[in-house]
Amino acid sequence: MVLFNSDYTEGAHPKIMELMMSSNMEQTGGYGMDAYCDKARALIRQQCGREDIDVQFLVGGTQTNLTVIAATLRPHQGVISADTGHINVHETGAVEATGHKVIALPSADGKLTAQQVLDCYHEHWNDATHEHIVQPGMVYISNPTEIGSIYHRSELQALAAACRECGLPLFMDGARLGYGLAAEDNDLDLPTITDCCDVFYIGGTKVGALFGEAVVIRNPAIAKDFRYSIKQRGGMLAKGRLLGIQFAALFEDGLYFDISRHAVKLAMKIREACESKGYSFVVPSTTNQQFPILPNALIEKLGEKWGYSFWGKIDEQHSAVRFCTSWATDEAAVEQLCSDIRSL
Amino acid sequence: MVLFNSDYTEGAHPKIMELMMSSNMEQTGGYGMDAYCDKARALIRQQCGREDIDVQFLVGGTQTNLTVIAATLRPHQGVISADTGHINVHETGAVEATGHKVIALPSADGKLTAQQVLDCYHEHWNDATHEHIVQPGMVYISNPTEIGSIYHRSELQALAAACRECGLPLFMDGARLGYGLAAEDNDLDLPTITDCCDVFYIGGTKVGALFGEAVVIRNPAIAKDFRYSIKQRGGMLAKGRLLGIQFAALFEDGLYFDISRHAVKLAMKIREACESKGYSFVVPSTTNQQFPILPNALIEKLGEKWGYSFWGKIDEQHSAVRFCTSWATDEAAVEQLCSDIRSL
Amino acid sequence: MVLFNSDYTEGAHPKIMELMMSSNMEQTGGYGMDAYCDKARALIRQQCGREDIDVQFLVGGTQTNLTVIAATLRPHQGVISADTGHINVHETGAVEATGHKVIALPSADGKLTAQQVLDCYHEHWNDATHEHIVQPGMVYISNPTEIGSIYHRSELQALAAACRECGLPLFMDGARLGYGLAAEDNDLDLPTITDCCDVFYIGGTKVGALFGEAVVIRNPAIAKDFRYSIKQRGGMLAKGRLLGIQFAALFEDGLYFDISRHAVKLAMKIREACESKGYSFVVPSTTNQQFPILPNALIEKLGEKWGYSFWGKIDEQHSAVRFCTSWATDEAAVEQLCSDIRSL
Amino acid sequence: MVLFNSDYTEGAHPKIMELMMSSNMEQTGGYGMDAYCDKARALIRQQCGREDIDVQFLVGGTQTNLTVIAATLRPHQGVISADTGHINVHETGAVEATGHKVIALPSADGKLTAQQVLDCYHEHWNDATHEHIVQPGMVYISNPTEIGSIYHRSELQALAAACRECGLPLFMDGARLGYGLAAEDNDLDLPTITDCCDVFYIGGTKVGALFGEAVVIRNPAIAKDFRYSIKQRGGMLAKGRLLGIQFAALFEDGLYFDISRHAVKLAMKIREACESKGYSFVVPSTTNQQFPILPNALIEKLGEKWGYSFWGKIDEQHSAVRFCTSWATDEAAVEQLCSDIRSL
Repeated sequence: MVLFNSDYTEGAHPKIMELMMSSNMEQTGGYGMDAYCDKARALIRQQCGREDIDVQFLVGGTQTNLTVIAATLRPHQGVISADTGHINVHETGAVEATGHKVIALPSADGKLTAQQVLDCYHEHWNDATHEHIVQPGMVYISNPTEIGSIYHRSELQALAAACRECGLPLFMDGARLGYGLAAEDNDLDLPTITDCCDVFYIGGTKVGALFGEAVVIRNPAIAKDFRYSIKQRGGMLAKGRLLGIQFAALFEDGLYFDISRHAVKLAMKIREACESKGYSFVVPSTTNQQFPILPNALIEKLGEKWGYSFWGKIDEQHSAVRFCTSWATDEAAVEQLCSDIRSL
Repeated sequence: MVLFNSDYTEGAHPKIMELMMSSNMEQTGGYGMDAYCDKARALIRQQCGREDIDVQFLVGGTQTNLTVIAATLRPHQGVISADTGHINVHETGAVEATGHKVIALPSADGKLTAQQVLDCYHEHWNDATHEHIVQPGMVYISNPTEIGSIYHRSELQALAAACRECGLPLFMDGARLGYGLAAEDNDLDLPTITDCCDVFYIGGTKVGALFGEAVVIRNPAIAKDFRYSIKQRGGMLAKGRLLGIQFAALFEDGLYFDISRHAVKLAMKIREACESKGYSFVVPSTTNQQFPILPNALIEKLGEKWGYSFWGKIDEQHSAVRFCTSWATDEAAVEQLCSDIRSL
Repeated sequence: MVLFNSDYTEGAHPKIMELMMSSNMEQTGGYGMDAYCDKARALIRQQCGREDIDVQFLVGGTQTNLTVIAATLRPHQGVISADTGHINVHETGAVEATGHKVIALPSADGKLTAQQVLDCYHEHWNDATHEHIVQPGMVYISNPTEIGSIYHRSELQALAAACRECGLPLFMDGARLGYGLAAEDNDLDLPTITDCCDVFYIGGTKVGALFGEAVVIRNPAIAKDFRYSIKQRGGMLAKGRLLGIQFAALFEDGLYFDISRHAVKLAMKIREACESKGYSFVVPSTTNQQFPILPNALIEKLGEKWGYSFWGKIDEQHSAVRFCTSWATDEAAVEQLCSDIRSL
Repeated sequence: MVLFNSDYTEGAHPKIMELMMSSNMEQTGGYGMDAYCDKARALIRQQCGREDIDVQFLVGGTQTNLTVIAATLRPHQGVISADTGHINVHETGAVEATGHKVIALPSADGKLTAQQVLDCYHEHWNDATHEHIVQPGMVYISNPTEIGSIYHRSELQALAAACRECGLPLFMDGARLGYGLAAEDNDLDLPTITDCCDVFYIGGTKVGALFGEAVVIRNPAIAKDFRYSIKQRGGMLAKGRLLGIQFAALFEDGLYFDISRHAVKLAMKIREACESKGYSFVVPSTTNQQFPILPNALIEKLGEKWGYSFWGKIDEQHSAVRFCTSWATDEAAVEQLCSDIRSL
């Protein structure tokens, strides 16, 4: 059985493992203040095209989301998110546990629009009783979203302009950022994202690393004392170099982008196999997650050979499932899966 | 320069790295529900001598402390700790950030006594205004303590009896537990600790692992829904197997105990070197951390060749420093350091 | 200009003011432990038909909501509420500030149904990733609701049965409870509410008192240490007797029910005036709040003589407004308002 | 039996009650936005000698402390306080419940010195591991302190200078401020306090009001959105005018200062009676709280006629007790108490 359930079923890319092995007995300082972290920071600054950004490394996505959000908001403020946002549905109330409401706006495709942000902001301030309502304090988006869609350059720039107009910091959860940048219809790049977002992160856990998220902070108000927040929320890794090692390996020779392209290429094969049979999708996705709507009988048959995530019942005869590819996915296995989708 | 600054200057024990490499391309489920975690759980249950305990894996110590404490207390309760306790001084207020006061009791040797707990509890309930005061809700200890001392069996059993009398769950921070169990004057073992504590953890980060703390929960009220808390606090590792792999390696053939003994043996050499010159210590320590009080001139000279942590000024001529050994410390380096202590 | 904007535009009922004056120079203990509070407790216990309930007095509604909810939930749990619930929209995230998510369910009439609670609960536990989702931990309802509707006996009993089936404490916000019990279609009474709810409160602020909410706690797990929570959240009034005095006056000779009936009777006149002209309502309300949808021109004209709250734009020509009556509303003013509604 | 247990045993000064009665049936807006609150604000601004300050009214002291502190600090910061500070010992961890540590510094007389603040600040920033330690974020003092002592002008100015040097907002809890300003050795006034403190409050609950604390905010960063915080923490009184009425009455003709002087004058009689018999005090107090150390036999005898608060055991034969006077204390009763102290 080959698992397509998620993009974190294997360990790390071999180049990461090699560097981790070869550096194992070196002695370094802790908490992300070592030469490996410095090197990774330098590489990321280079990719982002700016020297004046802070780069910090955390272990996981929920941890990163709650740490960034709690460090940015004042107590009476909430964070605007699509209702499908990971912080709204799949983090056990981690944001609320730091004292803040997630202001969830409806979204069919997992994305927020500039207009939604403007409306939400002005509706708040136009309400005579606004002091009795949570004040919008920042905006959270995911790219790619939790359902595989991506922001295009014009969308992100409009969103950033709206946020600036309202004085709302913009935060991008990039847990799967590599897969978004590798999408064929993508027109974003790291410098543009850096310019548009006050803070974002480059996901490692789901893109080739054992674990780790690289937080890029352009807004100095968020960067100030941010490491206190990492420590307080339990996200400061004692052997911080492990994060530096991984991101140094990922960004040394473009590995991060190469492996992301590999995953997306294979996801497109799965998509095409489904399309060739006329199956529709929960949302169209050009990234490494595909959410086809399949006949229940086919799902059951596929389940004998292939792992997938059950996503939701559609009608009596059909359900949606998720297939994920990753840096580690074997092309031959994908070919066989596609063949089964076509023939079963 | 060889660093004795801390016990987390290297990566992981080679046996861990081997298992991590050999399993790297295996596919497993996430979040600590895989076969490696199950194996590590079974090994730890065996070592603790009980089948009815819950074992969960988190990434780091601060994260574990805040997660366990917040999951145990009701909002109006605080956690009793020695004033030297890690949660009171070195976690950036992580416990307070979850809403709870650390009730710090004075301690010269880093330990709490049964009598202190009883006094604190009864003083609270005898106060006519106790509803205006934080209610003691649990007891936090570290073994070894932050300054290297250890609890003896009779002390821990008395403390556990006091806690039960007061209805206070007892929680042991075992970030360096291996080094405590390896001390020559230690008379504790894992089954006794399991019986005495409602919850404790076996530290991996400082004892041979890349990272990881294994939380052992005997009290079912704390175990209930504990995984929700791990997720909410950002401590649930997506590739959870990495924790299982490490603890499986550490507990397979007694590796955890072997490497702890190695570190303590070398620490005793450093201790003896200091004693031979008549130097005193902040506290007597039989574990892997030594806190000698040395002439400033000697400290400066040693600093040219050896890394240490500055601990505090004692008087105009003397300061305290910390030397740590670990599973990774080289015996020859220790011999040379000792020679320098004796001769410089 | 006479204000119908809210039910807290005047001070307190004269009988309360008299008792406050006559007792002014008496000396009593603080914090709700005096003879007046004891008397009010006894009267409320009598009205609720049970001796085994705890009664505590707080100052305001938001304070009471956040204190009860934070005292009841464990950290990973959230509170189910109608999306129109006061805690979800008009308390500046007070519940989230204590660390908990409000799980908002859609509601057209401001009420929750038993089926909604059952569905929400089972959907949570049937989700394979439920540890990644906030766990439903209690249910919050308002009676009357924020938009004037009330629960009928069969609805409340079904809801209570659903909550018990799921192990979810049921909490009723009774900020306007008197006006609900005085509705002509009401078939609830305090003993039934006490039996159905684990905890609820009898609102004073909006029903004749200067301020104050009487919390009735039937569930001993919530009552345990509840006064610590009142103190911690800033709700413990030093001169607690002021709360006892007010509730003693309200419940001595049925004053609470008399003044509620007065308000509802006048609200029905306003309702009838609107209906006589064919105006519709946001929701049908049999309590002291009426939300008619009126032509903008009429609203403007009325605004020259009468105060109301603007509730929302309906279409280009119409808007919804709120008229509130209270214990203090003058019947002659209502007659004149009704005449204006009919004639302007 | 006459009670000297506390300064909140009676209701409110008759002038407050009169104004509350005469305004009872007036209609006003809610939440502190009415003409009475505006009048009280104007009077307080006048007394403080500045127009550019924000004045907000809350109900009680714990509520005010937690609201101000939580609104001022960032999450990783703590509040410096004397270890005797009310927030540290008698508020059930209200500050910690908002996520912040109270950094308690030792104090024999209830006061903090400028040097203590400077030392605490520099010790933090000089620590190489300061990111692992709660960052000092503001300073909390009480005047008078919880044990009756007061700050002199030079002390407060030095403290304010130290706070400015360190960038730490200074917050004064003035729950008993009137009694401090009425002390014979007092050389502070409201304009000086306004200049020295970023935020402070003028206590009403213990100085003649039924309840209420007037918060004076000079620092615009704290004033910004402060009313959101009041609402979120449950401190926004619906019938907010009750606070305006009380402070308008207290500050109309210097009533606040008159009644404070009355209380202090009587407290000095109690002090002199104790001194005349050679009894010592926990601390010397020139305000309305006296803490004499008396023989247990005398305490018992006095207890037959007079109420007091037990403060603590001193030795086998002696204990400390607290006698409080207030605006409501009867001079004849004090004379009789003094006579008993002298003769029993």
